[in-house]
Amino acid sequence: MRRGMKKMSKKVGLPPGTLVHIGEKKNEKIRISVIEYSEEQFQEKEIDNIEVCFPPKDKNTITWINIDGVHNLNFIENIGKCFNLHSLTLEDIVNTGQYPKIEDYGNYLYIVLKMLYYDRINNEIEVEQVSLCLGSNFVISFQEETERDVFDAVRERIRNGKGRMRKMGADYLMYSLIDAVVDSYFLILEDIGEKIEIFEEQVVSTPTEKVFHEIHNFKREMIFLRKSVWPLREVVAAMERGDSSLIQESMHIYFRDVYDHTIRVIETIETFRDLLSGILDIYLSSISNRINSVMKVLTIIATIFMPLTFMAGVYGMNFKYMPELEWRWGYPLILTVMAFIGISMLVYFRIKKWL
Amino acid sequence: MRRGMKKMSKKVGLPPGTLVHIGEKKNEKIRISVIEYSEEQFQEKEIDNIEVCFPPKDKNTITWINIDGVHNLNFIENIGKCFNLHSLTLEDIVNTGQYPKIEDYGNYLYIVLKMLYYDRINNEIEVEQVSLCLGSNFVISFQEETERDVFDAVRERIRNGKGRMRKMGADYLMYSLIDAVVDSYFLILEDIGEKIEIFEEQVVSTPTEKVFHEIHNFKREMIFLRKSVWPLREVVAAMERGDSSLIQESMHIYFRDVYDHTIRVIETIETFRDLLSGILDIYLSSISNRINSVMKVLTIIATIFMPLTFMAGVYGMNFKYMPELEWRWGYPLILTVMAFIGISMLVYFRIKKWL
Amino acid sequence: MRRGMKKMSKKVGLPPGTLVHIGEKKNEKIRISVIEYSEEQFQEKEIDNIEVCFPPKDKNTITWINIDGVHNLNFIENIGKCFNLHSLTLEDIVNTGQYPKIEDYGNYLYIVLKMLYYDRINNEIEVEQVSLCLGSNFVISFQEETERDVFDAVRERIRNGKGRMRKMGADYLMYSLIDAVVDSYFLILEDIGEKIEIFEEQVVSTPTEKVFHEIHNFKREMIFLRKSVWPLREVVAAMERGDSSLIQESMHIYFRDVYDHTIRVIETIETFRDLLSGILDIYLSSISNRINSVMKVLTIIATIFMPLTFMAGVYGMNFKYMPELEWRWGYPLILTVMAFIGISMLVYFRIKKWL
Amino acid sequence: MRRGMKKMSKKVGLPPGTLVHIGEKKNEKIRISVIEYSEEQFQEKEIDNIEVCFPPKDKNTITWINIDGVHNLNFIENIGKCFNLHSLTLEDIVNTGQYPKIEDYGNYLYIVLKMLYYDRINNEIEVEQVSLCLGSNFVISFQEETERDVFDAVRERIRNGKGRMRKMGADYLMYSLIDAVVDSYFLILEDIGEKIEIFEEQVVSTPTEKVFHEIHNFKREMIFLRKSVWPLREVVAAMERGDSSLIQESMHIYFRDVYDHTIRVIETIETFRDLLSGILDIYLSSISNRINSVMKVLTIIATIFMPLTFMAGVYGMNFKYMPELEWRWGYPLILTVMAFIGISMLVYFRIKKWL
Amino acid sequence: MRRGMKKMSKKVGLPPGTLVHIGEKKNEKIRISVIEYSEEQFQEKEIDNIEVCFPPKDKNTITWINIDGVHNLNFIENIGKCFNLHSLTLEDIVNTGQYPKIEDYGNYLYIVLKMLYYDRINNEIEVEQVSLCLGSNFVISFQEETERDVFDAVRERIRNGKGRMRKMGADYLMYSLIDAVVDSYFLILEDIGEKIEIFEEQVVSTPTEKVFHEIHNFKREMIFLRKSVWPLREVVAAMERGDSSLIQESMHIYFRDVYDHTIRVIETIETFRDLLSGILDIYLSSISNRINSVMKVLTIIATIFMPLTFMAGVYGMNFKYMPELEWRWGYPLILTVMAFIGISMLVYFRIKKWL
Repeated sequence: MRRGMKKMSKKVGLPPGTLVHIGEKKNEKIRISVIEYSEEQFQEKEIDNIEVCFPPKDKNTITWINIDGVHNLNFIENIGKCFNLHSLTLEDIVNTGQYPKIEDYGNYLYIVLKMLYYDRINNEIEVEQVSLCLGSNFVISFQEETERDVFDAVRERIRNGKGRMRKMGADYLMYSLIDAVVDSYFLILEDIGEKIEIFEEQVVSTPTEKVFHEIHNFKREMIFLRKSVWPLREVVAAMERGDSSLIQESMHIYFRDVYDHTIRVIETIETFRDLLSGILDIYLSSISNRINSVMKVLTIIATIFMPLTFMAGVYGMNFKYMPELEWRWGYPLILTVMAFIGISMLVYFRIKKWL
Repeated sequence: MRRGMKKMSKKVGLPPGTLVHIGEKKNEKIRISVIEYSEEQFQEKEIDNIEVCFPPKDKNTITWINIDGVHNLNFIENIGKCFNLHSLTLEDIVNTGQYPKIEDYGNYLYIVLKMLYYDRINNEIEVEQVSLCLGSNFVISFQEETERDVFDAVRERIRNGKGRMRKMGADYLMYSLIDAVVDSYFLILEDIGEKIEIFEEQVVSTPTEKVFHEIHNFKREMIFLRKSVWPLREVVAAMERGDSSLIQESMHIYFRDVYDHTIRVIETIETFRDLLSGILDIYLSSISNRINSVMKVLTIIATIFMPLTFMAGVYGMNFKYMPELEWRWGYPLILTVMAFIGISMLVYFRIKKWL
Repeated sequence: MRRGMKKMSKKVGLPPGTLVHIGEKKNEKIRISVIEYSEEQFQEKEIDNIEVCFPPKDKNTITWINIDGVHNLNFIENIGKCFNLHSLTLEDIVNTGQYPKIEDYGNYLYIVLKMLYYDRINNEIEVEQVSLCLGSNFVISFQEETERDVFDAVRERIRNGKGRMRKMGADYLMYSLIDAVVDSYFLILEDIGEKIEIFEEQVVSTPTEKVFHEIHNFKREMIFLRKSVWPLREVVAAMERGDSSLIQESMHIYFRDVYDHTIRVIETIETFRDLLSGILDIYLSSISNRINSVMKVLTIIATIFMPLTFMAGVYGMNFKYMPELEWRWGYPLILTVMAFIGISMLVYFRIKKWL
Repeated sequence: MRRGMKKMSKKVGLPPGTLVHIGEKKNEKIRISVIEYSEEQFQEKEIDNIEVCFPPKDKNTITWINIDGVHNLNFIENIGKCFNLHSLTLEDIVNTGQYPKIEDYGNYLYIVLKMLYYDRINNEIEVEQVSLCLGSNFVISFQEETERDVFDAVRERIRNGKGRMRKMGADYLMYSLIDAVVDSYFLILEDIGEKIEIFEEQVVSTPTEKVFHEIHNFKREMIFLRKSVWPLREVVAAMERGDSSLIQESMHIYFRDVYDHTIRVIETIETFRDLLSGILDIYLSSISNRINSVMKVLTIIATIFMPLTFMAGVYGMNFKYMPELEWRWGYPLILTVMAFIGISMLVYFRIKKWL
Repeated sequence: MRRGMKKMSKKVGLPPGTLVHIGEKKNEKIRISVIEYSEEQFQEKEIDNIEVCFPPKDKNTITWINIDGVHNLNFIENIGKCFNLHSLTLEDIVNTGQYPKIEDYGNYLYIVLKMLYYDRINNEIEVEQVSLCLGSNFVISFQEETERDVFDAVRERIRNGKGRMRKMGADYLMYSLIDAVVDSYFLILEDIGEKIEIFEEQVVSTPTEKVFHEIHNFKREMIFLRKSVWPLREVVAAMERGDSSLIQESMHIYFRDVYDHTIRVIETIETFRDLLSGILDIYLSSISNRINSVMKVLTIIATIFMPLTFMAGVYGMNFKYMPELEWRWGYPLILTVMAFIGISMLVYFRIKKWL
């Protein structure tokens, strides 16, 4: 997950409301899908011509326009004119370094979310911006990437027409999309949780510096993850409170549910941070423990052999008058004494629990 | 205590309100007990047929339905229809990864609690979700497990008909159930407190790495424990404020009492975290102390024997003209000098308080 | 200071409002003293018969009943009936594990305080619960222990009838009692402050592990001390705001004074925690410093004697053709070289400031 | 970035509202540029005569006076009289040690901002104070330095007359200036972010003490950076809320946009602090790791050669009766034994993963 | 700066409102100066007779009574009667262990401030209590010490009659006094800032234990400094809000200015704490670095000389059949091998960057 300020600095000096795409996937093709439905009818189409304008037809059908790819500025401006979107909204749609936020422009609500994917190979969290515009009878969703999304289940529910989906308004559709995004966070949290458990085992079994750096990188990812999710709390809370007339009062109970999920996601991230800090503490304490145990080995060796070497040195002196040297049993005696000293030391260390 | 996100990820992609049991005890039998009482009468029965519907009979009796096991989705749906429960409520009942919360659905209050058990053998805290639905003249309690609960004392009080129990309404019954859960927390806190005192002694007497890891695991359990209890504060505070018409004003004084207990539980958990951090600090400082004392032993040995070995080495040299070697008392003299040096060193270390 | 959860767990399963004495001094005798006074008159008596009921006589005299010992449940219940106290109040009076709190029961105010004593010998803070009930013309004070209290100065002021005491109402009496308790905290804080200064000196002069553990225990005491005093802030603030009709508006200025004192107590405790943390940091850094200085001694010794021992070893070799060995001045020369090397090393270490 | 208290202390003892320039660039020339524009017309001039007074002509044109250099107190006083600015405002303009703040003087709004520049060579953040006065049809901007500013893009937009700029009021001009300042922060954040990535690599590859001190200095810069930006949040929030009648309601949506950017800047700074703390932790742990690996080398050498030296010492003893010395194959045998012991040790350390 | 609880404990047991002087300077003489002024007139006198009463004469002149020394209780009581001050106010004036606070007694405002001085020799911050009473046309200032104060500039401004001073009311006089106190803080902060920069250099150049303890003491001073200044924020904020009728609305803008200064003082203190923590971290890391470098020296010495000493030992063995000993070039050869090994080791350490 890269930081957002690189993206921002490209825009310095431009007048506010200027559309500058800030992202990486400029060469890919835009995909536009339009779904129109009411309780009785359902229509789905893919659109190629990015110059066409699709104003919502009448009050009885709900239109969901999903746009994958926000790098074609002409197209975004065209859409903005069709649906009467404010230039600041369009600026935020193409500038994908936003944090989650909600803005009420009177005739429509603008919501920014982050879709998250976990890259297991690099242990990185990838982030994609999703912008949602909710009008009285339409929802437009803008996605940064053209490949992945988490809205398939919602599409399927509209298609098969069962359940509440087709009976409710555009606000329920938007709720479903937000719910899909928040639910997808749990998949990532599960992956992260598993990775943390692996770290926990590694740091006890093989506390190498490599593992340490991996954990550190992972902790840094958590900082960015938190930044992407934390503001969502207020976004959903604002929808739960129902400040906007575009969200019916009967929807509040649903947004309260999303709010609960968001709180759970945030608290789980906090818990992960606590856990990772704990794991790093274990690592550091294990280094200290290792220094301690290395020191012990050194001290044991030195404490046993230094006195013995000294004794050997004494009887290696060349004094003329050293009576012990003449003794018949001098040599075996000194070896015995040396063995005794060595074994005593070992016993002493055993008692001191160094061995 | 396992984290809740594993449970949640099973639900991704399903429409909201879909009942998916998320738990572990799918094979056990559901147990349903129904208690009906008023000031004059009392009736208790166990029900096998999970298809039966028991609508609350009349306004004068209070019905308490206790359901052990939430894995039979048909049954839960059936209950939901009987008592007119919202589909989101049913979803939360069977999805046992909720945090404590209170939701007011107008005709009933829905409350989620966590029942906690302390497993002394594995030093783990086990958690079980309890859902309570309070209507005007009924309480339904859903428990995740079928074996243990903490409601026996409440049952007994209803049976023997003494005290306030039978004279009060359904809100008092619910208060009694919540009070029983919160009171049971103190048992666990007592167990944890004892374990912490054991840790405190161990870390001073035998600060091994094993103890360190145990303390760390325990601290992690505290993180999860805190997550299970912390939101309860707001739940009980909401009931104390009396936002709902289902709770009579005379009950507020009782909920204030539960609120006080909850605060005490939370503050005690915070204290435990502080204590465990303190114990870990003691452990780390004791490692440093040990490194220090090992270093001292090494240094004492080296400082005594290195000069002596050097002296022995000098008189082991093979120079032709070394007058000392010829002296009659050279050998005893050098031994005396060596002994003097050794003893001086020991005295020096004693003065420096290394010994 | 022991934690409160042990006390609480005895009560699990009992109906709310059940009187269970939770404390340690069950065998001591209860002492009841009654003081009745108005501006003109004054009467003081000790009562033995715990069955007697003393309803407050008339509106013109103020009655202060002080009860030392709360383990006689019959007596407490009797008192409760006399003065029309709620069963939850009685429960809190006998269960001495409460935190400071204030509860308004309409006809009387119930306040819990903690009286604190510092045990200089064990460096422990002892805590005793004081419950106060303020009616329109009476104050009842319940103390856990029968020996010590801090109310003598208040008694004396009532007796001698000087100053404001006898002219004011029951609310002023209660204020005086709370003021006496809060003022007594300053005595303890002074003792603690002195102890901390002693620790500060010890940790610099003799940083032994024993001192470290003592400081750690003391820091733990601070955690419990803080828990006993912290909630008092809100209690006094509630009285200052004057939410209750039992406290006259002219009293608010006095409670503001107590509030200021409470704030000072709390901030001083926070400061003590900061100071103790600082002292522990000094201890830990002094261990590192000691490891460092021990290492230096070892390195100096090794760096001087290892090369010298090597040189001695070289001339202890038995090669046939070693011309130096035959030299007349070989031995004095090598000794001079060795002395030069040794002294050079010492000079080098002095320059490096290791000596 | 230097701290502000040096600047402040010069003023001690002077009456409030006294103009004392507190800054460093006293010798430079003041530059005054005046831009007058309306939708139809545009006029730009540089002014030399600092005694001239330029009252805003009429309600239809908007006047922007930009003053580079605030060290000429006469001039500032003159300006103050022309535009009826309060003496406290003038004091704050010349005293460049202010934090960002907003003050509503009724007839005009006074805003203090910090313009920031990053000095890549010294890794320091330079700060310059910008004061803005917004009247009904004029904006006066005071800059501390005469060389750099970030307003060129705004000037250009006024000149070319495209876009919204010339159609909107003075409040939009002030918004554009604030927006330019906040946008310029992203450039600095990008530079800092790159520097942090360099630190991150250095601390892993070459964790020298120099790098450590550099990181520490950089972290200190973050403390000052945070102090310069943090209060901006409230300044912009006050403008978003629209407390002042000088800002039209239609502007609120623009200030909300600036507010979002400010929040992003602040959160990014917080993230940088977290990252730098993490990097310092890596540094410290890498020192411990190095101590550990140095210890290992020492221990391996000592453990191999101490026993061998002892053995050589034994056979260097001069006892008369040492049968091994007479053996024909004694010498090769002992060499073999020594080699065996040495290799065994190496194998042992390999198994222990010390090699 | 000594802690306040010692002072407080002297008062335990006394009735509230009892005057007990709690301070150190009991023997000094009290100095009373009275300044009366209006726009036209000015009168200044020193008073010796502490029994005199000076009621404010008429509404048109403003009286400022400055009292140096609060240890004469009779005098303070006399003053209290003259100006109708509450007994709790008098208690707080003589008890100099207060924190900054503001109290509105209806007919007058009572404000407690702390005057601070920095003792450069002992690196201590000295604190003196200043009490201010603001009536409709008088200000009384009580200072603890008789020697120093920071009010000279205010006196001078009254005397020379220029500027706003003589035209404004008593509230402006009080504002000027508070402003003088707060401005004087900046002098101290500058001194502290310089001392911290010295510490910063010392800890890098000569990180001795003495410097460490000095920094620690300084950090402790910061804790007390913060306690003395922190509550001032709320005091000034209360005056800015203008809760009291004694402060005219036109003054609010001035108090907002003082408020800004107070915020800056507090934030600077916080910054100092951060900086000192950073310096302590540098100290600790430098100890670790030193241990590391000492270890390296030891290891280099041991690694070079242990193998060499072993080799010398081998050829010092007394085996009969050691062919090398007979070689003509054995001795030079072995010396060459030893030199080669030693140099190889040095090269190896250079590559490993230990040298």
